[in-house]
Amino acid sequence: MRIIVDVMGGDNAPEELVKGAVNAAKLYSAEYTMVGDADAIADVAKKNGLDLSSFEIVDAKGVVEMTDDPITVIRKKTDSSMVVGLKMLADDKGDAFVSTGNTGALFTGATLIVRRLKGLKRGGIGALLPLSTPVLLLDSGANVTVTPEYLEDFAMMGTVYMKKTFGIENPRVGLLNNGSEECKGTELQINTYKLLSQNENINFVGNIEANKVPFDACDVLVTDGFSGNILLKSIEGVGKLMLGSMKGLFYKSAMTKVAGLMVKKHVGALKKKFDPAEHGGAPLLGFKKPVIKAHGNSKAKAFENAIRQAHGFASSGVTEDIAAAALEIREKRMAAGVEESAE
Amino acid sequence: MRIIVDVMGGDNAPEELVKGAVNAAKLYSAEYTMVGDADAIADVAKKNGLDLSSFEIVDAKGVVEMTDDPITVIRKKTDSSMVVGLKMLADDKGDAFVSTGNTGALFTGATLIVRRLKGLKRGGIGALLPLSTPVLLLDSGANVTVTPEYLEDFAMMGTVYMKKTFGIENPRVGLLNNGSEECKGTELQINTYKLLSQNENINFVGNIEANKVPFDACDVLVTDGFSGNILLKSIEGVGKLMLGSMKGLFYKSAMTKVAGLMVKKHVGALKKKFDPAEHGGAPLLGFKKPVIKAHGNSKAKAFENAIRQAHGFASSGVTEDIAAAALEIREKRMAAGVEESAE
Repeated sequence: MRIIVDVMGGDNAPEELVKGAVNAAKLYSAEYTMVGDADAIADVAKKNGLDLSSFEIVDAKGVVEMTDDPITVIRKKTDSSMVVGLKMLADDKGDAFVSTGNTGALFTGATLIVRRLKGLKRGGIGALLPLSTPVLLLDSGANVTVTPEYLEDFAMMGTVYMKKTFGIENPRVGLLNNGSEECKGTELQINTYKLLSQNENINFVGNIEANKVPFDACDVLVTDGFSGNILLKSIEGVGKLMLGSMKGLFYKSAMTKVAGLMVKKHVGALKKKFDPAEHGGAPLLGFKKPVIKAHGNSKAKAFENAIRQAHGFASSGVTEDIAAAALEIREKRMAAGVEESAE
Repeated sequence: MRIIVDVMGGDNAPEELVKGAVNAAKLYSAEYTMVGDADAIADVAKKNGLDLSSFEIVDAKGVVEMTDDPITVIRKKTDSSMVVGLKMLADDKGDAFVSTGNTGALFTGATLIVRRLKGLKRGGIGALLPLSTPVLLLDSGANVTVTPEYLEDFAMMGTVYMKKTFGIENPRVGLLNNGSEECKGTELQINTYKLLSQNENINFVGNIEANKVPFDACDVLVTDGFSGNILLKSIEGVGKLMLGSMKGLFYKSAMTKVAGLMVKKHVGALKKKFDPAEHGGAPLLGFKKPVIKAHGNSKAKAFENAIRQAHGFASSGVTEDIAAAALEIREKRMAAGVEESAE
């Protein structure tokens, strides 16, 4: 297995990303390719005394900026580390790709370069919510408008991912909604509820309200990318606010400062628990090869975690299982007259 | 001014609600009517030594359950404290109504009994988000599908409410979206962005991402009721999870328990700060008379806060200003050919 890592892009490239990749290579047995500015990579190695002899280094001078338009990036910035890496992945020069770059560009690149699995109309971006237990949110922002069929596909992909990479026997799938009753939500949720209830390959546990999400209500949560993005970012924002308020708590007086020192270690652990970067990256699902989006603010440890995730994604047969299930769902829909024709 | 309070419904009726109403009556000068089971109210007064002589008591034996269907409640449960109270409000026997009951039924009742202000197609339920600064979220769940015009109406209503009841000079209005750029979101957000940008009576500050909401990004946040519900409930859920984790922090060892005692007072204050019930109730906007929905789990203090809010709502001229602004927007739309005819 070969993992391709894009060490440019994000807030801490290339130094933290190169360090993270070197650490990951020691822990997760595979061959590794680093794509990025070769001179900058060599500088980082020299400065930090890192041995890159086991890495294949592919020079790519261009960098995708966070403000770049996705389609333009993929079509025009062909010398960027992201596009070079995605092309290598598509050309079977690697088995997984990890990047901290622009999410929209990475998703568009996965669609146009790596390509979707046969039978799927859309790929999705899963996000592992930083909660007490891991919850895979699908879609987390790539598809702002969806159909019940897309959500059924997301439910299937999320089921495979959580089963294969987290070892969850029969992952519980929930539908994000504004109430628990079957009749809740817009037409999208009402129709999706029916589809998921009828799909015997999905362990559908019903509608999940946002206040129940943090308390182990399901393993996979499906929704449109708009609501998914609202949920993901509000969890992030409230987490940040609360951690800040908690810190402030210990600055009230000399006594509270002492108390702060007494629990410092545990506050640090709590902070880590709710830090999205600590949970690794976001898997792009529904494509012919595994792609992981690492957080833009990833430091070495977070990038190492994202590479661990890519390793698990590529070695566990997720893609193969999604490919098989996608064809099965497609056939079922054609038989029911939902899909007009094969793509 | 007379405030009508529904002391039935919710988790702690009637005892906590009667207590809250008695406290509120001492603080906020007005006449008060209590609607509910008169025998139960008398029992509570006797048990707690409360003087209800200044209250008008209206006996209503029926109670609206949380699981009741809204339309059925309003049409059939005419002896319920909620319906009796709403009818009194509509018949000018009071100037504001407060209830902890079923949100859907209260909203439907406001629509069918109290009725909308002329020129508005929809009323909305505002929620004051329990964050570092008050943010009025509109809609918080009543209207799962909306149009850009509804959101423009919500922006106007929220502006009036925050100006009149919080004294904010020129409230900043944000549009909840999955990115800050003008092109983000679905067709709804893109078209709403245009409308709000062009409305010179609204201080539109652009798209607001959910992770920015907790950090004083705007005073009024408009969105459809589906996303609004997701945002509101995820803030609630994550807040609960974090407060629980924080508490757990102090149970790690003898030393952390001591630390817990040292900051106990401040943890309590923090808990209060993020408790939705402490922020009072949710104003129903766009109706001919003020209606406040208090939290179903309200205890005396929270119910007292909701009554304080109803007092401010009724005495500040919010309804009159919304009525005038609604007619103005309506005229503008008719001139532009957006509205076909007057209702």
